[in-house]
Amino acid sequence: MENLIRFGEKLFDELEIAVYHSRDVSASVELNEISMASTRSGAVTIIRGIKDKRLGLAIVDSDEPERVKEAIEQAAKMAKLNSPDEKWVSLPEPGKYREKPKPNYELKETSPDILVEKLVHGIKLAREKDPNVVVAGGEGGVSWEERRILNSHGIDVFQEGGAAFFFLELVGRKGDVVTPGIFDFDARRDLNLDVDGVVERAVQKVGWAYNVEKSRNEEVPIILGPWAIAGLFSYALLPAFSGERLVKETTPLAGKVGEKIASDVLTIYDDPFHPLSLEPAIADGEGVPTRKNVLIEEGTFKGFVWDNYWAKVYGTESTGNGKRDLRSGGINIGFHSVVIENGKRNLEDLIAEIERGYLVDGLQGAHSSNPDNGNFAVTANPAFLIEDGEVKGASVFLIAGNVYELLKQASEVTKEQTVMPFMNTMITPHIKFENVKIAGK
Amino acid sequence: MENLIRFGEKLFDELEIAVYHSRDVSASVELNEISMASTRSGAVTIIRGIKDKRLGLAIVDSDEPERVKEAIEQAAKMAKLNSPDEKWVSLPEPGKYREKPKPNYELKETSPDILVEKLVHGIKLAREKDPNVVVAGGEGGVSWEERRILNSHGIDVFQEGGAAFFFLELVGRKGDVVTPGIFDFDARRDLNLDVDGVVERAVQKVGWAYNVEKSRNEEVPIILGPWAIAGLFSYALLPAFSGERLVKETTPLAGKVGEKIASDVLTIYDDPFHPLSLEPAIADGEGVPTRKNVLIEEGTFKGFVWDNYWAKVYGTESTGNGKRDLRSGGINIGFHSVVIENGKRNLEDLIAEIERGYLVDGLQGAHSSNPDNGNFAVTANPAFLIEDGEVKGASVFLIAGNVYELLKQASEVTKEQTVMPFMNTMITPHIKFENVKIAGK
Repeated sequence: MENLIRFGEKLFDELEIAVYHSRDVSASVELNEISMASTRSGAVTIIRGIKDKRLGLAIVDSDEPERVKEAIEQAAKMAKLNSPDEKWVSLPEPGKYREKPKPNYELKETSPDILVEKLVHGIKLAREKDPNVVVAGGEGGVSWEERRILNSHGIDVFQEGGAAFFFLELVGRKGDVVTPGIFDFDARRDLNLDVDGVVERAVQKVGWAYNVEKSRNEEVPIILGPWAIAGLFSYALLPAFSGERLVKETTPLAGKVGEKIASDVLTIYDDPFHPLSLEPAIADGEGVPTRKNVLIEEGTFKGFVWDNYWAKVYGTESTGNGKRDLRSGGINIGFHSVVIENGKRNLEDLIAEIERGYLVDGLQGAHSSNPDNGNFAVTANPAFLIEDGEVKGASVFLIAGNVYELLKQASEVTKEQTVMPFMNTMITPHIKFENVKIAGK
Repeated sequence: MENLIRFGEKLFDELEIAVYHSRDVSASVELNEISMASTRSGAVTIIRGIKDKRLGLAIVDSDEPERVKEAIEQAAKMAKLNSPDEKWVSLPEPGKYREKPKPNYELKETSPDILVEKLVHGIKLAREKDPNVVVAGGEGGVSWEERRILNSHGIDVFQEGGAAFFFLELVGRKGDVVTPGIFDFDARRDLNLDVDGVVERAVQKVGWAYNVEKSRNEEVPIILGPWAIAGLFSYALLPAFSGERLVKETTPLAGKVGEKIASDVLTIYDDPFHPLSLEPAIADGEGVPTRKNVLIEEGTFKGFVWDNYWAKVYGTESTGNGKRDLRSGGINIGFHSVVIENGKRNLEDLIAEIERGYLVDGLQGAHSSNPDNGNFAVTANPAFLIEDGEVKGASVFLIAGNVYELLKQASEVTKEQTVMPFMNTMITPHIKFENVKIAGK
């Protein structure tokens, strides 16, 4: 690869070669049966070269030197056809990395058999625990990735690692009631996926959902679960921390560093080195060292996150948040593992104190949120009515609001944290918010 | 592969091996510049085996005999763990195919250079024709696929072919007006993509959109363009023709064969052999011969489409509409090329006769339509106000209605047909509908 950098330097002022090898095994469930087992692997090389501030970017699904060479020539032709990007400064310089975590090589060789077994066990257990349950869907997967990022300024960083995930979707049918799809999941850096825990939690929620409670317009405490938080924050809140949005003036957080934007109970940071992280990356998608970036500390907004390009445009440093989009080949500002710090008490303790309120498992429609101002309008479903400290049944209702108002209403976070492997990877407790206006449906 | 069928027959009562080779080259535009060129290729083999009515399905991204053998064993293990599907009858028997179309081998070897050149030409031309235009996005792509479907009943069918597509998204900015993203596209089975036509049509629409006209609540004629039709029909109408939905009682067309469900001007059929078709398949995803299946003939509903499984459950024959989902490996009922028959007059003639009405280029929100009853609620955008036979400017409005009511309001179809390569492949004229209720926005 070093030779290819030398070859590319003849055509470009500077260039980057990023090589990704991946292997994914997975198995799926549909209606109580295993529907599919799959094994896929591949290599992708992405060339990013700059000549006279003109960018060329080529992608090829191979790491064979001949094909990479062709891609370099392809990128060089493209750069010639593009106009200069006057904002372009340079690719990153080498930095100092944290110590590499030890990869779990068991995940490199996993057979889909193991996932099929776990799913079969999950289906059997769910139907034993509740004969009225159908396992509508589910999936187990193990992914392994090896990546190497090199550039002509001397960056050369190799990383490898894997993660496993598992989820089930249950639907219960009792009398006239058909519950909504109830999800639960686990994700981790080894194969000890907690199938029994997933089933137990999902079956408990299905049990609650057999009793349907009408919702009404009211102002009540609500507890958002990890899936609901990840959905809402991924679309309404997290984009606002992007330095690109600061430059483009599309974040409501501009000029607010050091200001109180949330309740004291909320501390949020991005760090791939959290113990529950699925991908403890030492470098981001362009080889810049990762670090812990605090977004909100006890309610106070601490700062933006940056990739190399927008940091240099703004005159600051990359925070190691350049994430590679393997489809477009480009770098976008993104997160590694968004962590919401946990609290001291269990979810049960929080529920026990609520006279009337809701526990919200999922929020639908969060993707239509507006990150420019934090406005959102979502349907809480599945959601569960709490009365006199106990869950009474399932309800559906609407919440239309603003995520920054909501952040100030947070009153407690639970002790348990869950890792949410979908959308942005988030490691989050349940969060209780006070006096949330909801509209019955 | 025949040997592998023999190997699999020891483990299964019957089995199918489907091998897909693909090669995709593409290039993209972002904000007037070429952002990426990519070349990707791959092989996927899917095993579907049945033993005592128990299904096993395995996917492997290779066609090497050793790995396919492993996948067969994988599928056999899975079948043992599943329960019998009492509805299962059998995999398809060999059928009689139409003559294979001659593939255009030029598409097998295409370099992304050609697409980059076409995009650069498109960007240059668009900005020459209208200096206020930004080419916000766009893509050119060429895909090539070779597939072989074999099963233990003697099916062995090989097909190969390719298609090219091209689209641009323009945004115009004049004074205070920023137009919505205006799309136009071309798709065909050779490389003569009509870049000039795409630019000309898109620039014309941008020109219209510089003038913004308020919409109001009214009942007016509207003309839907190909993109709007493909969006609405893909979600609100086409699923209703699925035999699976007939069996599951989730189609409003049950019991209506021979009934008038649309205006006389509408004839709709599915046929991969239409001259504009992007994929003239002689066999579907499970090796059943394709044919022309008429859905609606001069307003009369002619019948459902079937794959092998649901046809046998219902006691009829597959219509060759088993489409393979390469992600899940399974077969779903789907379409090859949905053709809406064209008429005699040009779009200009139709527009010239409208005193007040709208030309609708795109419909947002069509994916939320309900195919169980045909209800939909969409935002028409981009859409253009027509007054006194001329397009006056851009408007945004809502249409909430029922697709079957709309079908009866169709009054004319244009002579020109466009092939829509996204969602379901559709070959469609513009369609005029009378007295459509719209809500101003």
